[in-house]
Amino acid sequence: MVGYHAGWWDAQGAPVAMEGKAVRPALTLACARSVCAGVAADSVLADSVLVAAVAVEMVHDFSLLHDDVIDGDDTRRHRATVWKVFGADQAILAGDVLLALAARQVSGASARVLADAVVELCVGQSADVAFADGDVVTVADCLAMAVGKTGALLGAACQLGALAAGADSGTALLYRTFGRETGLAFQLIDDLLGIWGDPAVTGKPAGADLASRKRSLPVVAALTSGTPAGSELAALYGAAGALDVSRAACLVEAAGGRDWAQTEAAQRTQNALHALTAARPLPSGAADLQVLTDLITRRDY
Amino acid sequence: MVGYHAGWWDAQGAPVAMEGKAVRPALTLACARSVCAGVAADSVLADSVLVAAVAVEMVHDFSLLHDDVIDGDDTRRHRATVWKVFGADQAILAGDVLLALAARQVSGASARVLADAVVELCVGQSADVAFADGDVVTVADCLAMAVGKTGALLGAACQLGALAAGADSGTALLYRTFGRETGLAFQLIDDLLGIWGDPAVTGKPAGADLASRKRSLPVVAALTSGTPAGSELAALYGAAGALDVSRAACLVEAAGGRDWAQTEAAQRTQNALHALTAARPLPSGAADLQVLTDLITRRDY
Repeated sequence: MVGYHAGWWDAQGAPVAMEGKAVRPALTLACARSVCAGVAADSVLADSVLVAAVAVEMVHDFSLLHDDVIDGDDTRRHRATVWKVFGADQAILAGDVLLALAARQVSGASARVLADAVVELCVGQSADVAFADGDVVTVADCLAMAVGKTGALLGAACQLGALAAGADSGTALLYRTFGRETGLAFQLIDDLLGIWGDPAVTGKPAGADLASRKRSLPVVAALTSGTPAGSELAALYGAAGALDVSRAACLVEAAGGRDWAQTEAAQRTQNALHALTAARPLPSGAADLQVLTDLITRRDY
Repeated sequence: MVGYHAGWWDAQGAPVAMEGKAVRPALTLACARSVCAGVAADSVLADSVLVAAVAVEMVHDFSLLHDDVIDGDDTRRHRATVWKVFGADQAILAGDVLLALAARQVSGASARVLADAVVELCVGQSADVAFADGDVVTVADCLAMAVGKTGALLGAACQLGALAAGADSGTALLYRTFGRETGLAFQLIDDLLGIWGDPAVTGKPAGADLASRKRSLPVVAALTSGTPAGSELAALYGAAGALDVSRAACLVEAAGGRDWAQTEAAQRTQNALHALTAARPLPSGAADLQVLTDLITRRDY
């Protein structure tokens, strides 16, 4: 099941060629290399760094397996989700095994960092589930959920890479901030793409998040803006039947949701790079990290 | 949710007085004390021992939270299960958090022992779920599942107690064997009680496991016995409608299922005590351990 989920195998266990982005372990490796800038690249890829990167990806896969069950999502990475193929019971257990194996890889301070990220991740998802039935959601609630669901593990990915490369705990905390802020920028941009993204680029229909009445960050900013456009959007979201997607997109924009999210994303990206600069004068080894940050945060929106 | 599950609170968070048996952490503490026999009792309850005991109970609670979702069980400890009260999504996430926090408590060899037990536990449950749709189950399959679902964590509970008290790894492995064999004896006796237990003692209707057509160890031993009674039992289990419980109980007994389970339970108990004796000449500190073993394995059957 895990091999199927990871895209290594089909449901019968035959090899398939599919590659995920593996952004989180890439960040772990790039942060480790950044810490060790000047040291020969090979020696940076010490076992402890690779093990940390693997643990991070296992935690990510654990959370996807459980989230797909919880959210009832049918497809992931262009294929049927594990629970659709093998059943929800098996998907829950496969996630459990991955979490236990991830925890087994790391020790000491790194084990605590990873466990804390898992707790934040689950608390974020739990808040999201609890909000599903029509309560008022504030921008602060929504940002806190995004920190939990996206920022926490990206932060841990970076912090673990730094720790595994021998950074002191203070430096590792700066890498954590880099990862968390990058994660939040990523989520904001993902939410913008969910409304205004080019279907040819995102692979989703235009305005997919609006059609499903998702309370993404720009939407919540609009809903809580106290503007007439925000009120009209709330009425659209509250009405039965199919939603007028292009009207809703205009209302989010008119209520300031798009501007707010773009500004917030830019601020978070700046926070991330600022933390990196504070960690030490930017060494040549941080080039990978900047490429990754660009990849994550400068998508077409 | 976790406080509710543990019996500390009601669903609204108000304190209630309910106590679980806490057999697993009791074993951790008793094994630690056994290793340290002769040392003043207080010094045995070092932080590391208590932390190990807590981690074991957290893993147990994690597995109960997920198992209740998977098995669809409505009640646990005489109350509605967490998923019935808070929803399956929240119960999955609460279990995830407990597993992460349990892993956070232990380090080094102990972390590996605990993670390996979680993997065994989940693999056992996964096999059980996979078997649910009418495949032929052998006694070996059934014993392997019981090792995973009951033996693995009891073994880890004992091994972790020994390690936390400073036992060498070889001695700790003997405590592991003690726990695993005790766990298997417990499961066999639990299965016997599920058929022949006195409802006044078990709190369940007589023959509850037969009424639900559970393929418990004595039942599987009977079904695979190659006897006429075994064949008749298979026909009863395969027929539609309510099952004649007293007839089924007679058939399990006639096919040798009851004898086999009693003999196997006695053998496992003996294996457990033998491992303990091998660990060192039985010290006075092992008295608690023997009381616990008696409590677990010498129930009224």
